Amino acid sequence: MTSTDNSADSPAEAKPAAKDPWDLPDVSGLVVGVLGGTGDQGRGLAYRLARAGQKVIIGSRAAERAESAAAGLGLGVEGADNAECARRSDVVIVAVPWDGHAKTLESLREELSGKLVIDCVNPLGFDKKGAYALKPAEGSAAEQAAALLPDSRVTAAFHHLSAVLLQDESIDEIDTDVLVLGEARADTDLVQALAGRIPGMRGVFAGRLRNAHQVESLVANLISVNRRYKAHAGLRVTDV
Amino acid sequence: MTSTDNSADSPAEAKPAAKDPWDLPDVSGLVVGVLGGTGDQGRGLAYRLARAGQKVIIGSRAAERAESAAAGLGLGVEGADNAECARRSDVVIVAVPWDGHAKTLESLREELSGKLVIDCVNPLGFDKKGAYALKPAEGSAAEQAAALLPDSRVTAAFHHLSAVLLQDESIDEIDTDVLVLGEARADTDLVQALAGRIPGMRGVFAGRLRNAHQVESLVANLISVNRRYKAHAGLRVTDV
Repeated sequence: MTSTDNSADSPAEAKPAAKDPWDLPDVSGLVVGVLGGTGDQGRGLAYRLARAGQKVIIGSRAAERAESAAAGLGLGVEGADNAECARRSDVVIVAVPWDGHAKTLESLREELSGKLVIDCVNPLGFDKKGAYALKPAEGSAAEQAAALLPDSRVTAAFHHLSAVLLQDESIDEIDTDVLVLGEARADTDLVQALAGRIPGMRGVFAGRLRNAHQVESLVANLISVNRRYKAHAGLRVTDV
Repeated sequence: MTSTDNSADSPAEAKPAAKDPWDLPDVSGLVVGVLGGTGDQGRGLAYRLARAGQKVIIGSRAAERAESAAAGLGLGVEGADNAECARRSDVVIVAVPWDGHAKTLESLREELSGKLVIDCVNPLGFDKKGAYALKPAEGSAAEQAAALLPDSRVTAAFHHLSAVLLQDESIDEIDTDVLVLGEARADTDLVQALAGRIPGMRGVFAGRLRNAHQVESLVANLISVNRRYKAHAGLRVTDV
């Protein structure tokens, strides 16, 4: 056990302390792309953001699949192939399977240049004992994205959401916080604001990308929670 | 992003599903030792458990320091050197600094034989950018403990608590859940019950020891949260 309190005195991150951490930008006019938007998690996030009033474009390798998924969601959601999705979006959520993560991002380096990228991929392995963390060579999926996309502003967020809850139209609020990681405050503020658009969610700043691995891997623990309690667990940060 | 829902269909951990996860044992009669009980976190935990009515023995390398810390807490808390603390306790919480973790446990292998051990150590490094995760060769502090204590029942819990809140006598409830990890249900149930003795806390099962690293390392993120929000953050698991 290490005290979480002690380092509050370290000067390292003290500069932005003067700013109200809840003073977040208006992101309602931004176009949000979701790469891997035809998967359960991507579609669920696209649905929640569109329902909150955000303009959303679903990306997929095949434009037709993306268009079909978008049509199923309604709410003004559009579908496109990944490249067009990236090109047309201000903010791009990466919700592809870990297996295709590096390849997809490498192929979109140009389209993602200058964009705010939100990586929400959890590198996990599964065996008969359940889920376990995989450790990418770069440290985490988010750090892999940052290495592959040197001209993008890479953040990490939206790791711990239940696709079942996201996609359930009868649920109005998602009872969870979203841990947001990144290097630049302007970027993490924006992602926090985006998370906060979804009723029930708050975006909470939770450190730099070098501390993304444990946030990504914690999904393995939430899977154990879900099994034991027959739940769709989320996380709330208390005292914040 | 990987769905946290999917693997609920895997047969791996299905056996104990029939038992109510909140049907936990009565632990009120157990003696709890706290190795490293003179540190802020150890003393804070000792205080909360004693205040909840648990018999607590603080352990330290020097018996006098443990006795002095115990006297400061009152509530029937006793102090002893680490070996006597381990010997006299049914459940032993390991709250020593990561630096001394391996050495302390190696030296207590015999005293801890047959005991339920709760490791709450977070291996972290610090530099000018703040805190970051250290990766023990064994995978995590808890797995290191399990490797060093083959005759003990090793679990992991109590990682995310604020020493400030634990030690603040004016605070009646600690608003946080305690993630509990381990290999044997009887052991994790017992640790969950112990966490649940402290008002405001729930012990929530969160997987096997191979998934302890991310739980330990998440303290680095909570330190960032605490800095940004001037908080003493804890975690609640929602939908559980």
